[in-house]
Amino acid sequence: MNALTRARCAALDAADPLAAMRAQFALPEGVIYLDGNSLGALPKATPARLAELIERHWGRDLITSWNTHDWIRLPQRLGDKIARLIGAGSGAVVVADSTSVNLFKTLAAALRLNPERRVILSERDNFPTDLYIAEGVAGFLEQGHMLRLAEGDDIAGAIDGETAVVMLTHVNYRSGAMHDLGAVTAAAHRAGALMLWDLAHSAGAMPLDLAAADADFAVGCGYKYLNGGPGAPAFLFVAPRHQESFRQPLSGWLGHAEPFAFETSYRPAPGIGRYVSGTPPVLSMAALEVGLDLLLEVPPAALREKSVALTECFIAAVEQEAAGLGLTLLSPRAAERRGSQVSFRHPSGYPVMQALISDGIIGDFRAPDILRFGFAPLYTRFVDAWDAAAALAEVLRTRGWDRPEFHRRATVT
Amino acid sequence: MNALTRARCAALDAADPLAAMRAQFALPEGVIYLDGNSLGALPKATPARLAELIERHWGRDLITSWNTHDWIRLPQRLGDKIARLIGAGSGAVVVADSTSVNLFKTLAAALRLNPERRVILSERDNFPTDLYIAEGVAGFLEQGHMLRLAEGDDIAGAIDGETAVVMLTHVNYRSGAMHDLGAVTAAAHRAGALMLWDLAHSAGAMPLDLAAADADFAVGCGYKYLNGGPGAPAFLFVAPRHQESFRQPLSGWLGHAEPFAFETSYRPAPGIGRYVSGTPPVLSMAALEVGLDLLLEVPPAALREKSVALTECFIAAVEQEAAGLGLTLLSPRAAERRGSQVSFRHPSGYPVMQALISDGIIGDFRAPDILRFGFAPLYTRFVDAWDAAAALAEVLRTRGWDRPEFHRRATVT
Repeated sequence: MNALTRARCAALDAADPLAAMRAQFALPEGVIYLDGNSLGALPKATPARLAELIERHWGRDLITSWNTHDWIRLPQRLGDKIARLIGAGSGAVVVADSTSVNLFKTLAAALRLNPERRVILSERDNFPTDLYIAEGVAGFLEQGHMLRLAEGDDIAGAIDGETAVVMLTHVNYRSGAMHDLGAVTAAAHRAGALMLWDLAHSAGAMPLDLAAADADFAVGCGYKYLNGGPGAPAFLFVAPRHQESFRQPLSGWLGHAEPFAFETSYRPAPGIGRYVSGTPPVLSMAALEVGLDLLLEVPPAALREKSVALTECFIAAVEQEAAGLGLTLLSPRAAERRGSQVSFRHPSGYPVMQALISDGIIGDFRAPDILRFGFAPLYTRFVDAWDAAAALAEVLRTRGWDRPEFHRRATVT
Repeated sequence: MNALTRARCAALDAADPLAAMRAQFALPEGVIYLDGNSLGALPKATPARLAELIERHWGRDLITSWNTHDWIRLPQRLGDKIARLIGAGSGAVVVADSTSVNLFKTLAAALRLNPERRVILSERDNFPTDLYIAEGVAGFLEQGHMLRLAEGDDIAGAIDGETAVVMLTHVNYRSGAMHDLGAVTAAAHRAGALMLWDLAHSAGAMPLDLAAADADFAVGCGYKYLNGGPGAPAFLFVAPRHQESFRQPLSGWLGHAEPFAFETSYRPAPGIGRYVSGTPPVLSMAALEVGLDLLLEVPPAALREKSVALTECFIAAVEQEAAGLGLTLLSPRAAERRGSQVSFRHPSGYPVMQALISDGIIGDFRAPDILRFGFAPLYTRFVDAWDAAAALAEVLRTRGWDRPEFHRRATVT
């Protein structure tokens, strides 16, 4: 097999159908940014869009903008855009609040729609906010609900007749391991459980098909692969069959059937609208819309094709250039089981990542020993994957990470 | 008594110690904006602050900004600024989520801290989202909690041994009537109830003293008198004595004692920090901070003095210029019972307000017949109050609002 070289990576970039999208992002000079799975990069169109919103819509048109600039429908309008990325129909998604708050709404719905059961089943290594919110819902109800945890590979076998809802993050934030959306949903349904997916680490990095998977609920994050900006509002999907069968308890005025009738009693909006609570953060919503519009320009399948090719390229480059330097691949080797990130373990993971960051290679460290690299397919190049792998090999080879003082530092997070 | 004239209003502006603050706001030409109680005006410093945040902090510094630009402490840092406006100590307020979501957190806490009682007592004409969220909390618990409503003037008498929490908006959104913060809180406490204040229509328009009132909980809005921009994040106050006695159920990862330890189980942050849920919307938070910094430049007492003087001036001007034209003052005549807005009733309220708006006088209509005018003391002039009153009189005098077709239109909202 031919050795991978930087020239071959450059050739892959030259042949990349998404290559032109990189020019739509304002990436800093001298930086290889492999943390778009934590905070997506800035679209070049965002500053002007926000300036217009702030100076003209807010500053000049003031309160009238709720109608003239359609602020009032932002949750639904952006939701419909996200629906196209995740295989949901129009009217099945809203953008609102944070992922955490949306987890509360959907877990509340799931528990009430499966009232005979008491168990929320999740993965021990799920992102913490999912687990914490499940604890919060269960504890608040005081009706014996509980969170039960299984290892990621054992989830399907752990679903049983007590399981009210299975709550999983599709792509694991640490390892990048990806669940089978359709198979796990089917297993949940066979056992009489509902299925709630957290798409934080997959929406915008690959096409998803919630309708084909027959998922019940989903939530996801606006500031990772959707490039909506720091703390961008999150999204929420409810299958149409469930939308009107429950009043979610965060029943704020913008989820009312007629918010501006100012009625004394809550009447939930038809459809997905009742999952909106309070007034949307318009500035943050507008930035998210720019990110969504960029994603909608590209064929969804091309996103996943490039994402797989990038992560394959990075794994191959690291294993070639840094062979024997103490790295262990944590992410699944099989592409179909891996999201858009690659994680390696190394006993000196923390100082190694600090060294990479100081060299302009921005990845993430996750305790106890994980080096995490995200590959956002819209703006990451194959030469970035090569250069990051080469830099990682260089750091490992030249800086003596087997010295004990680095092992001590590795316990600091 | 001397007649009020525009010249006298101009003299009041010349003597106004807050007059210079108006230059800090980007108000549109040809508009008299009396709707700052719905959406506050744009501070001139906001566009540059947001451009810096977006282009340099997000675009260039990317993920490192959570530390280098202290995004991670935005909820607490902005909370401490709001604390100075509402008479709370440092560490008693966070900025997070929407008013609706914060109402859920604080009502949840109040019900669990007063577990023998089942009644949420509120005002029938409270802002709807407060009532809807109370319905949502009570309905979700399925433990017999209920929302009981009384008229505004009868609240103190309606508090009884069943009342777990009294939830009131300090200044009524329709009438501008203001409750006595200290007296109602004391009445609630005498009856063994907790007190939750919604400060949406008072924070930023007058000094408040939650500590002196001994309030238990409060929430409020960032986009009205705080001038934080459309859908700005809201705030939440919890008296220090209650902060650690309850785990609020929206227990997202940023309310954890160590969010970046990524622990499997929720351990609530000490103090007010546990009332943060998910990742804050940084763009919207940054805009709110600009509004807060402007408010912190002025002596709090001056805000209230000017607010009272403005509303007195407007009432006097309307009653002088529009005498006999069918208006009835809805707001309390006694300044100490009135917030920073003035509402009049008129049988043709809807088309009258439409006519005013088309003439550049921006107020609000509230069904069935209410003309609502807000007087944000930071940027509203006495001549604005005069000109609005004169325009209202002119509209009423010359456009034949006693004709039946206008009465029909008045039922359209």
